[in-house]
Amino acid sequence: MSIDSTSPIGIFDSGIGGLTVAKAVMDTLPNEDIIYFGDTARVPYGIKSKGTIQKYSAEITRFLVSKNVKMVIIACNSVSAVAKAIVTETAGELPVLNVIDTGTKAAIKTGKKQIGVIGTLATINSGAYKTELLKRDDSLVIKSKACPMLVPLAEEGWTENEVALKTLSIYLDRFRTNGMEALILGCTHYPLFKTSIKKVFADREIEIIDSADAVAKSARSRLKKLNLLNTGEKPGNLSCFVSDHPQRFRELAERFLGREIPDIYIKQLQE
Amino acid sequence: MSIDSTSPIGIFDSGIGGLTVAKAVMDTLPNEDIIYFGDTARVPYGIKSKGTIQKYSAEITRFLVSKNVKMVIIACNSVSAVAKAIVTETAGELPVLNVIDTGTKAAIKTGKKQIGVIGTLATINSGAYKTELLKRDDSLVIKSKACPMLVPLAEEGWTENEVALKTLSIYLDRFRTNGMEALILGCTHYPLFKTSIKKVFADREIEIIDSADAVAKSARSRLKKLNLLNTGEKPGNLSCFVSDHPQRFRELAERFLGREIPDIYIKQLQE
Repeated sequence: MSIDSTSPIGIFDSGIGGLTVAKAVMDTLPNEDIIYFGDTARVPYGIKSKGTIQKYSAEITRFLVSKNVKMVIIACNSVSAVAKAIVTETAGELPVLNVIDTGTKAAIKTGKKQIGVIGTLATINSGAYKTELLKRDDSLVIKSKACPMLVPLAEEGWTENEVALKTLSIYLDRFRTNGMEALILGCTHYPLFKTSIKKVFADREIEIIDSADAVAKSARSRLKKLNLLNTGEKPGNLSCFVSDHPQRFRELAERFLGREIPDIYIKQLQE
Repeated sequence: MSIDSTSPIGIFDSGIGGLTVAKAVMDTLPNEDIIYFGDTARVPYGIKSKGTIQKYSAEITRFLVSKNVKMVIIACNSVSAVAKAIVTETAGELPVLNVIDTGTKAAIKTGKKQIGVIGTLATINSGAYKTELLKRDDSLVIKSKACPMLVPLAEEGWTENEVALKTLSIYLDRFRTNGMEALILGCTHYPLFKTSIKKVFADREIEIIDSADAVAKSARSRLKKLNLLNTGEKPGNLSCFVSDHPQRFRELAERFLGREIPDIYIKQLQE
């Protein structure tokens, strides 16, 4: 098989969070087919070793390549932090994007100097965003905060209720007392809290950097450059592959995407 | 090796939650040594298949047996629901207790007829408490509610703040509008919320059934019967074995136990 502009875009995550990236790609590139893989049997990756995450990521990349994708998007912060090299190697000639690099570039582009980063415990402890940001501009002032309650809140569907607002105001308090100008949402679940985060910072001018949006825009410009944009008029199709529990996946996925998903398949990868 | 009254009690869980059981056992039987195993590398069990949970539980039981324990306590609801038979078989002659059976018996003993059960999504979906309760008394009225936010709240240390209280009042609302007389805490993390749950039901007479306490009392009477109670005067020692991440374990464990833990060892089990 050889790829062309009608080939699908491959997107993967350890679970369902990456669907916010799939949604952003569908909004930005409505004619592209998407193959999404969520490793729901082995989620969460954040607590696993580097070697294990690399092994799993290579397996998923091989699966996406077997589906003839024209691009691989790593929609998982843990994978972006420790396994982008092995995904790129496994993907061969295919372009590979990841949420940390694109989120970082989008943050730099704002021109803001005081940048906040929020993410899971694993992402914040890895220091991946901070390292990438300072590599590009060592004059930046970076403040980070792990927000472990936000993933369960998003999965419970509590993104705008009183519990969500109170939780966000506790987590984001440290960013109110310094001169933070931009906030990177360093976890694929967090775009669901955008409205609530804006409420918490209602009295402040804060630029919110959503790496799902950033990666979608980056995908469009990269595909254009490679002459691989699907210029057809047929609306794109989303096919979801998960390694376990399709029922709970469907319920959460529809909440994350805000639309129905017709095609969910189970695909077990080797242990 | 042969066991006697000075042998330790073995307690295991998929992660740290079972430490509330260890704490209850230490409070009830202060002279007993305890070997605790938390499978922190493979947590959470709730999303894994029955076969996988059974395999892991057998591995852990063999490890505890190799440590010469005189009793095995399953301090994990997922294991209690699907793997108590294999643990009992693997433990050979040793007495085996589990949180679901002891919690259920304690609930029956109250004489209350309208019983609420809260637990993780996996425990509630398994219907294990409901099945066990109705097996013992089919005239009971059981109402269940999965409370997925409570584990992350406990691990964040938010058990009595505004977020915890608001979350509990949302989850427990359905129990306020019926005649519930007793509430089973069907997850080993939940005893940490006892004070807050009492606040939510401040205007009601509700019996709270904490399976950690129930299993500790049951351990005492079973050991007494078997002539295996440690009658020495030396305070018992707690040794913790985890399969990954001892640092985060220590921080959480000390919060769960309310005291320092000197001995944490890493013990990897075969995959």
